Amino acid sequence: MTPPGTSGGRLAIVPGSFDPLTNGHVDIVLRSAQLFDRVTVSVLVNAEKTPLFTAAERVAMIREVFSAHANIDVDRFDGLLVEYARRQGACAIVRGIRAVSDFEHEFQMTLMNRHLEPALETVFMMPAEQYTYVSSRLTKEVFRLGGSVHGLVPPVVERWMQAKQATAVRNEKTAIGLQGE
Amino acid sequence: MTPPGTSGGRLAIVPGSFDPLTNGHVDIVLRSAQLFDRVTVSVLVNAEKTPLFTAAERVAMIREVFSAHANIDVDRFDGLLVEYARRQGACAIVRGIRAVSDFEHEFQMTLMNRHLEPALETVFMMPAEQYTYVSSRLTKEVFRLGGSVHGLVPPVVERWMQAKQATAVRNEKTAIGLQGE
Amino acid sequence: MTPPGTSGGRLAIVPGSFDPLTNGHVDIVLRSAQLFDRVTVSVLVNAEKTPLFTAAERVAMIREVFSAHANIDVDRFDGLLVEYARRQGACAIVRGIRAVSDFEHEFQMTLMNRHLEPALETVFMMPAEQYTYVSSRLTKEVFRLGGSVHGLVPPVVERWMQAKQATAVRNEKTAIGLQGE
Amino acid sequence: MTPPGTSGGRLAIVPGSFDPLTNGHVDIVLRSAQLFDRVTVSVLVNAEKTPLFTAAERVAMIREVFSAHANIDVDRFDGLLVEYARRQGACAIVRGIRAVSDFEHEFQMTLMNRHLEPALETVFMMPAEQYTYVSSRLTKEVFRLGGSVHGLVPPVVERWMQAKQATAVRNEKTAIGLQGE
Amino acid sequence: MTPPGTSGGRLAIVPGSFDPLTNGHVDIVLRSAQLFDRVTVSVLVNAEKTPLFTAAERVAMIREVFSAHANIDVDRFDGLLVEYARRQGACAIVRGIRAVSDFEHEFQMTLMNRHLEPALETVFMMPAEQYTYVSSRLTKEVFRLGGSVHGLVPPVVERWMQAKQATAVRNEKTAIGLQGE
Amino acid sequence: MTPPGTSGGRLAIVPGSFDPLTNGHVDIVLRSAQLFDRVTVSVLVNAEKTPLFTAAERVAMIREVFSAHANIDVDRFDGLLVEYARRQGACAIVRGIRAVSDFEHEFQMTLMNRHLEPALETVFMMPAEQYTYVSSRLTKEVFRLGGSVHGLVPPVVERWMQAKQATAVRNEKTAIGLQGE
Repeated sequence: MTPPGTSGGRLAIVPGSFDPLTNGHVDIVLRSAQLFDRVTVSVLVNAEKTPLFTAAERVAMIREVFSAHANIDVDRFDGLLVEYARRQGACAIVRGIRAVSDFEHEFQMTLMNRHLEPALETVFMMPAEQYTYVSSRLTKEVFRLGGSVHGLVPPVVERWMQAKQATAVRNEKTAIGLQGE
Repeated sequence: MTPPGTSGGRLAIVPGSFDPLTNGHVDIVLRSAQLFDRVTVSVLVNAEKTPLFTAAERVAMIREVFSAHANIDVDRFDGLLVEYARRQGACAIVRGIRAVSDFEHEFQMTLMNRHLEPALETVFMMPAEQYTYVSSRLTKEVFRLGGSVHGLVPPVVERWMQAKQATAVRNEKTAIGLQGE
Repeated sequence: MTPPGTSGGRLAIVPGSFDPLTNGHVDIVLRSAQLFDRVTVSVLVNAEKTPLFTAAERVAMIREVFSAHANIDVDRFDGLLVEYARRQGACAIVRGIRAVSDFEHEFQMTLMNRHLEPALETVFMMPAEQYTYVSSRLTKEVFRLGGSVHGLVPPVVERWMQAKQATAVRNEKTAIGLQGE
Repeated sequence: MTPPGTSGGRLAIVPGSFDPLTNGHVDIVLRSAQLFDRVTVSVLVNAEKTPLFTAAERVAMIREVFSAHANIDVDRFDGLLVEYARRQGACAIVRGIRAVSDFEHEFQMTLMNRHLEPALETVFMMPAEQYTYVSSRLTKEVFRLGGSVHGLVPPVVERWMQAKQATAVRNEKTAIGLQGE
Repeated sequence: MTPPGTSGGRLAIVPGSFDPLTNGHVDIVLRSAQLFDRVTVSVLVNAEKTPLFTAAERVAMIREVFSAHANIDVDRFDGLLVEYARRQGACAIVRGIRAVSDFEHEFQMTLMNRHLEPALETVFMMPAEQYTYVSSRLTKEVFRLGGSVHGLVPPVVERWMQAKQATAVRNEKTAIGLQGE
Repeated sequence: MTPPGTSGGRLAIVPGSFDPLTNGHVDIVLRSAQLFDRVTVSVLVNAEKTPLFTAAERVAMIREVFSAHANIDVDRFDGLLVEYARRQGACAIVRGIRAVSDFEHEFQMTLMNRHLEPALETVFMMPAEQYTYVSSRLTKEVFRLGGSVHGLVPPVVERWMQAKQATAVRNEKTAIGLQGE
C-alpha cells in the first residue's frame, strides 16, 4: 500500500479564489503540471462576501478547462492553507507572480506559512508576459463596465460570464483603475 | 471638415475622482497643457460610495481653478475610460506618478487599457517634488482629523472644504497613516 | 523648572493600533528604548470598526508586557498624530519597517506629517529578521483560521487571545493570504 | 517667421545610447511619433568605453529603421541632455519604462533635469509587454554568448550584429543574468 | 531505454557563481532537492575577472558540502544557461529570491531565457529569513574588511576562506555598504 | 569617571563617502543632531579609486559646513563600520533614505551589520523632499558635464568644486542618467 501523498508522486497545490479563472491562472497551472507529478487547483470557498461565481460554479468551470489533463485535479477548501496542504499530502504550493508588488505580499505569506508548517515549500512561477496585467479583479471590472473579456479568460469562463447578467454583478470596490482612478 | 478629435489638435484626458482636486493634480494638468493642444480634466462619477463632494461640485471647483486656461476643459464620465476617451477623440491619457508603488498599479492598468483599445496611449508625468505626498485620500484624512489643508489644495477647494462641516465627513477607511497606523 | 518634553530627556512615540501587539512591535519598542530617554507606546483608539481588542484591553496588555521597563510608558490617543506628539513634547515618532512596500507608504506619511509639524522627526527602525512576516493583521488571520499564534505575540497577548472565542472574531477582510489568495 | 522649436510643431526627444537599438526602443519611438509633431532619436556619444557599435554606426542603423517615417529624425549629442534639448527647441523628453526599478532611477533623473531646466518636461511611456525584458545590455549578452537576437532587435540591426564577429565583442560586465548569476 | 533527462526523474539546475557558496545557497539547494528528483549545482566559470576562488575550488567546496546528498550533483558550465540546461536535460532552473529587488532582475532574466528556450521553466524559492542578508558579495566584503564569516557560509567554506590571506583579496568594488556608503 | 561613549550622552554616526557632501547630507546630519546628543560625520577613506576630493579635503569641507554646531563632529575611518562605531562608543548609525530602492540595499546592510554587532542600532531618516534627487554621484555628473551645482551642495563645497578644473575630473562611469541613458 502506498502512503497518502506519494501514491502518484509529488503533488503541488495551486490555491486561489479563481473568481473567475483567468488565462493567467491557466498558464501557471499548465506550467506547474510540467514540474510536478500531480497538480490540484484548490478553490478557496468564501474568500469574498459577494463573489461573481459560487465555489461550486468555479470548480465546475476549472474542471472543464483542465478536463484533458490527467494529472490536474480540482478541489475546494477552507481554513488554513497549510493544514489543507498537509491533509492532501502536498509537497509544494505554487504561486503565480505577475509583478514585483505581488512578490512582497507573497514573501510575507510564504514566511508565515513556513512558520506554521516548515515541511511545506512554496515555489513562485511567472506567467507568460501577455498575462502580466490579467487578474480576476480587473477582469471582473472590465466585465462590470461592459467591456469584452475575450482573451482574458478561457472560452468556457467567457461563456459562463456572458450567461450572467452584467447588471447583476455586485462589486463593492468598483471602478478602480479602468476608470482612471 | 475636420475629423473628430483633431479639430483642435491633439487632445489628452486627465481622468480621476478629484475628490478633491489637489495641488498635485493642478500641477499635472498644467504640465499636460504644455504638451497637448487641449486637455480635458475628466471627473469620474460614482467612484466612491460616500465622496466628500458630489461630481457636480467637483466639476464646478475644477472649472473655477482652470478658468483662465483656454485649452483646459472639464468634463464628467462613467463607464470604461477607454470608451470615453474614444468618444472624445483623445489620443492620450495622462497619469500623474508620485511614487514607485503608484507605478506598478498604473503599469497593469495601462496594459489592460491598451488591450481594450490599442490606439489610445497612456503617458506618465511627475508632479513637482513638493507634491509627492499630496493625495486626495490623505488630504481628506487631514481635513477629517481637524488639520489644515492649506497648501495641499487650491484656494478654491480650500474654501469649499471649509464650508463643509468636518463633522459631516463620512469616510469608511479612517485614520490610516496620519494616526500612526 | 524643566520645560515640558525635556524634563525626562528626549521622548519618542511608537504609535499604532496594536490590535494585537506582536513580537515585532515589542522588538521595535525595545530598540527605541535604547536610543531615547523615554518611549511612549501610543495606542490609536478607533482605528478599526471591529477590533479584536478594545483600546482599554490593548493598553492593559502592552502595559503588562513592558512593566519591567522604567522608561517605556503606554498611552492612548485619537486625532492627528502630530498634534498628539506635540502635546506630549515628543521629539520623534518611531516607525518599524519590515519591508520595502511598508516604506513607500511611510515615506508619504512622513512628508505629510512634516508638512503639518516641521519640528517633529520620524525615524525608521528595522525589527529582527525573524519578525519580517509578523503583522497584527496576519496574526489575527492565523488566529481566526484556528492556527497557533505562539511565537508571533508575547505570552501575555497569547493568553488574552486564547480567552477570546475564535468564533467570536469578526474580520471583514477575511482569508487574504493564508488561504492562498 | 516661426520661433525655433515650434516651426514644425512640438518636438520630443527620445535619448539613449541605443547600443544597439532594440525592438523595445522602436516601439517607444513609434508611440512618441503619434503624440508629438516631430520626434528626434538622439544617440548619446561616448556613453560607454567599449560600445558594440560606434555612434556613427548607431545613427546609421536608426536612420535606416525609421526611414519611412517623415516626422522621426535621428541625431547625436554629448553633454547635458537638458542643454541639448534646449538647443533643439524640444518641449519634452520621452523615456520608455519597462519595469518598476527603471522608474525609480528615472524619477531621480527627471527631478534633476527639471532642477537644471524647469521648462523641459519628461514623459514616460510603456513599451508593449512583449518587450518588457528586451534591453540593449541583455541583447548584447545574448549575442556575446552565441544566442540568437532575432526578435529582440529590428532586422537591420540583426544584420549589422551578424556582420560583427561575436568573438570581437568586448564587454567588461559579462554574463550577468543569462548565465544564472 | 530511457530518454535523456528523464532517466533519473526530473532534474533542476541551481546555477550561480558561488564565489563563495553561502548558507543561503545551501538552504535553497536543499529545498530544491525536496521538490525535484535530482538537483545539479552548476558553477558558472569566468563570471568575474578576479574571483576569490577558482571555479575548480568552488566545485570542490560545493561537492564537499553536499557529499551526503545522493540526489545533489555539482557541475561547471559556461555560455548560455538555457543551452547548458537543455544539454543536461533539466526541466527547471531554481533561483533563490531574498528580496524584492532581486525579483525584478530575475523577472527580466526569466522572460529572456523563456524567449530563448520556451521549454525550460524557472521557479523561484525563498531562503529561510535568517539568510535574507547573506550574499556572496557581502560575505566577501566582510571577509576583506577583517570581519568573521562564521554563520554566513558552511564550515567547509569558512576553512577555505581562512586559508586564503585576507590581504590577497582583490575586489574592485570595495567597501559598498558595510562601510556606510 | 564616565564610561566611553556616554560621557557626552548618546553618539550617532552618519557615515559616508561624502564625495562631495550634498545639501541632502547636510539635511540628514542636522536632523540627527536634534535627536542625539552628539553626531559624528564619518568620512570613509578609499571608497572609490578616483574620488573627486581626497579624504582630507572632504573632512575639511564638512568641518567648515558644520563649524557652528557644537554637537557635530567630523572624523575619517576605514575598515568595518561596526568596528569603527564600537570604538567610538556610538549607539546608532544614521542613514538617509531618499527612495524606496535605497531602502532595500540598506535593509541588507542593516541586517549584516546587526549580525556583526548586535548592540549597534541603525536608524533611517528622510531628507526634505527637495533633496530627493540629490546624490553625490549625480552632483558630480552635473559638474562633469558643465552644469551648475548651485543649490545641490553647500556654498563651501560649491567653491571647492569651482576651484577644481572640470576637465580634470575622471569618472569611469560617465553620463548615466543626465544624458538620457
